[in-house]
Amino acid sequence: MIAGDPRVGDANATAVERLRSARPHLVDIRAAREAVPGLDGRMLLHAGPPITWDDASGPLRGAIIGAALYEGWAGDPEAAADLAASDGIRLAPCHEHGAVGPMAGVVSPSMPMYVVRDSEHGIEARCTMNEGLGKVLRYGAYGPDVIERLRWMEQVLAPVHRAALHAHGPIDIWALVAQALQMGDEGHNRNRAGSSLLLREIAGDLVEVDAPAQQIAQVLRFINGNDHFFLNLVMPAAKAAADAARDIPGSTMIVAMARNGTRFGIQCSGTGDEWFTADANVPDGLFFSGYGPQDANRDIGDSTITETAGLGGFAMAAAPAIVRFVGGEVGDALGFTRAMYEITLAEHPVFQIPILGFRGTPTGIDATLVVRTGIVPAVNTGMAGRQAGTGQVGAGLVEPPMACFVAAVEALAERVAAGDGP
Amino acid sequence: MIAGDPRVGDANATAVERLRSARPHLVDIRAAREAVPGLDGRMLLHAGPPITWDDASGPLRGAIIGAALYEGWAGDPEAAADLAASDGIRLAPCHEHGAVGPMAGVVSPSMPMYVVRDSEHGIEARCTMNEGLGKVLRYGAYGPDVIERLRWMEQVLAPVHRAALHAHGPIDIWALVAQALQMGDEGHNRNRAGSSLLLREIAGDLVEVDAPAQQIAQVLRFINGNDHFFLNLVMPAAKAAADAARDIPGSTMIVAMARNGTRFGIQCSGTGDEWFTADANVPDGLFFSGYGPQDANRDIGDSTITETAGLGGFAMAAAPAIVRFVGGEVGDALGFTRAMYEITLAEHPVFQIPILGFRGTPTGIDATLVVRTGIVPAVNTGMAGRQAGTGQVGAGLVEPPMACFVAAVEALAERVAAGDGP
Repeated sequence: MIAGDPRVGDANATAVERLRSARPHLVDIRAAREAVPGLDGRMLLHAGPPITWDDASGPLRGAIIGAALYEGWAGDPEAAADLAASDGIRLAPCHEHGAVGPMAGVVSPSMPMYVVRDSEHGIEARCTMNEGLGKVLRYGAYGPDVIERLRWMEQVLAPVHRAALHAHGPIDIWALVAQALQMGDEGHNRNRAGSSLLLREIAGDLVEVDAPAQQIAQVLRFINGNDHFFLNLVMPAAKAAADAARDIPGSTMIVAMARNGTRFGIQCSGTGDEWFTADANVPDGLFFSGYGPQDANRDIGDSTITETAGLGGFAMAAAPAIVRFVGGEVGDALGFTRAMYEITLAEHPVFQIPILGFRGTPTGIDATLVVRTGIVPAVNTGMAGRQAGTGQVGAGLVEPPMACFVAAVEALAERVAAGDGP
Repeated sequence: MIAGDPRVGDANATAVERLRSARPHLVDIRAAREAVPGLDGRMLLHAGPPITWDDASGPLRGAIIGAALYEGWAGDPEAAADLAASDGIRLAPCHEHGAVGPMAGVVSPSMPMYVVRDSEHGIEARCTMNEGLGKVLRYGAYGPDVIERLRWMEQVLAPVHRAALHAHGPIDIWALVAQALQMGDEGHNRNRAGSSLLLREIAGDLVEVDAPAQQIAQVLRFINGNDHFFLNLVMPAAKAAADAARDIPGSTMIVAMARNGTRFGIQCSGTGDEWFTADANVPDGLFFSGYGPQDANRDIGDSTITETAGLGGFAMAAAPAIVRFVGGEVGDALGFTRAMYEITLAEHPVFQIPILGFRGTPTGIDATLVVRTGIVPAVNTGMAGRQAGTGQVGAGLVEPPMACFVAAVEALAERVAAGDGP
């Protein structure tokens, strides 16, 4: 048993303190080929633990097809699928390249990425920019409108946004999240406040960018039209914070939870880059008009990095209005946050929840506490359509599979027993 | 007794339905001399019930001095005070000219005003634009920086904002307030979400205004720098809605609560333009650094129109974070809203509070219920410094004097007895 080992407690205290003390800032926007170490040639990153084309679900395949079309690696969807099926495209997890991606999480070399840097520990993380809802690449859609939007993001959104960012200087993401939690966001599926705060923060600098007013107006209207825009900043910020807590020998704290649409995987601080995976569950929630449970893919995306850092499902008490998007009652939102204090190591000093008397969000999931209590992390999520090309079909709640946590605790116990402990 | 009269119930049902069904839209921005019927010559509007210079408190006198300097009616503060003291400036309540003004509420002919129109009943209301916090005219400051800011608002903010508004089309204020209540605002002293939503809504059109980019950037930065910017739209929207409920014979519903810094006054639907006044109380709350209770003026401003329409203190359960600004505990915020259901006639169909299971805010204060229960309307407010020229010294909570409500109910009972009833 490692649960009673005081050295594990010390290791976890170190890990969670690193997680809590991170202060991620948006510092740049760069093409993925420049921003992501090791992303070259016909290579794509994807969400979740490692996976092959053969095992990939519909939405991940759809996003791979779309990315191949966007990069010009194939002329039509069939050719793109053939290329991927014949190992013509290398796949690697975002998480293994200092990145995160929502839903399918596919990153291709030409896509612009936010670059976030934790000023406390110096760790960088990256994420693509948010395309909006509905038929978008990250939900597995790859139609001409999807590709056209990606090109506009590359050619207009990114350079204009980048110029404004450089004029403004680094943006403290946790400062915006702290405000957003007092404005009904939880940082995962409700980011209306965060998106609003980001827009108003950079609007003045956007206007002064040397670009046609029409393009600047397009950028402002694009951000205004997408209440999830800020998610793609919360995610790399959470990734940078969680990466700061990696590799503390003996720590049972979780530093990554991620889904590739087929398997749910976690990584622990004390077990390095090892993934502990199990079949991903299908989310349960509210469906867009015309879709139902039979249309939902298994859980997918790196966005569970928000829960890993004390946001999302862990901060739902701050966002009671989210139940109108993911289902359930207002009391459930409070209940999820309260339950998460049972499986976490600390409270976040920056993420405060007004309705709980400004208590900090439950932060730093201890795999041992998950196994001991039987309480799995609360996760809210978008739902992708099962069929490649469909796009988003709804949003809801999903349970991570307990087997991941059991496997992680067992592996850590073996390491400690073998002397690779704290 | 009028409380048991079923005709009063019918009259109140009509009044509150008109209040509930209003849909105010921002339709224009115009100079007060054009926007406000009857504002001409050396005339100023002010907050609250009628008052003279002799009875005016420090902050109202300070704002009158500032407005006279801004209009060029006097060359220095002493000359401005002499002019006002010698009846050289006519004073009239905002409320009697289809307008409302925060704090001192002083409106001079050259000031730009928001013009709000209720699309349901066709009633218009106006309000000046928000100057920000600290040393500003509405808190009684009149230094050169105050006057300079007013000129910039007239010469840059208003024309740029107006052009963007006309390109955008009318803005549905209650649609923004409904969202803002799900984002931790209560529409009176917490308007961070509303200000953010307004900015993102018009940002695209602002960028395309035919004005120097530097001016447009100034406008965006000014709005971003002032989380109370949206208050000056909530107020005229609430005024238009409340005015729609005026003059229902026999109705004991309150259609205006307002303070001039000396007296607190109310108007009831069934008693026409008659004011029922009593000495205003001094707010209790949190003070800015360097100030204390001895610096606070009596309650001042027309912003209690927000409470009159079901916002502000009545919606505090939506805004638990406001206790960091006005004082008290999170539980108090919930308690104020819950108590207000005891003295109101209905729930607002648009203003929903997530944490109360999306229950509508308590709307339509019944003076009879106030008298019968002994519960006065919950009001949160900014606090002006007592000395003219000081500016804001804090924010807090204040109790309206019960005597106003008693007087209103007595007057209505007399009218009903005299046959001027429902």
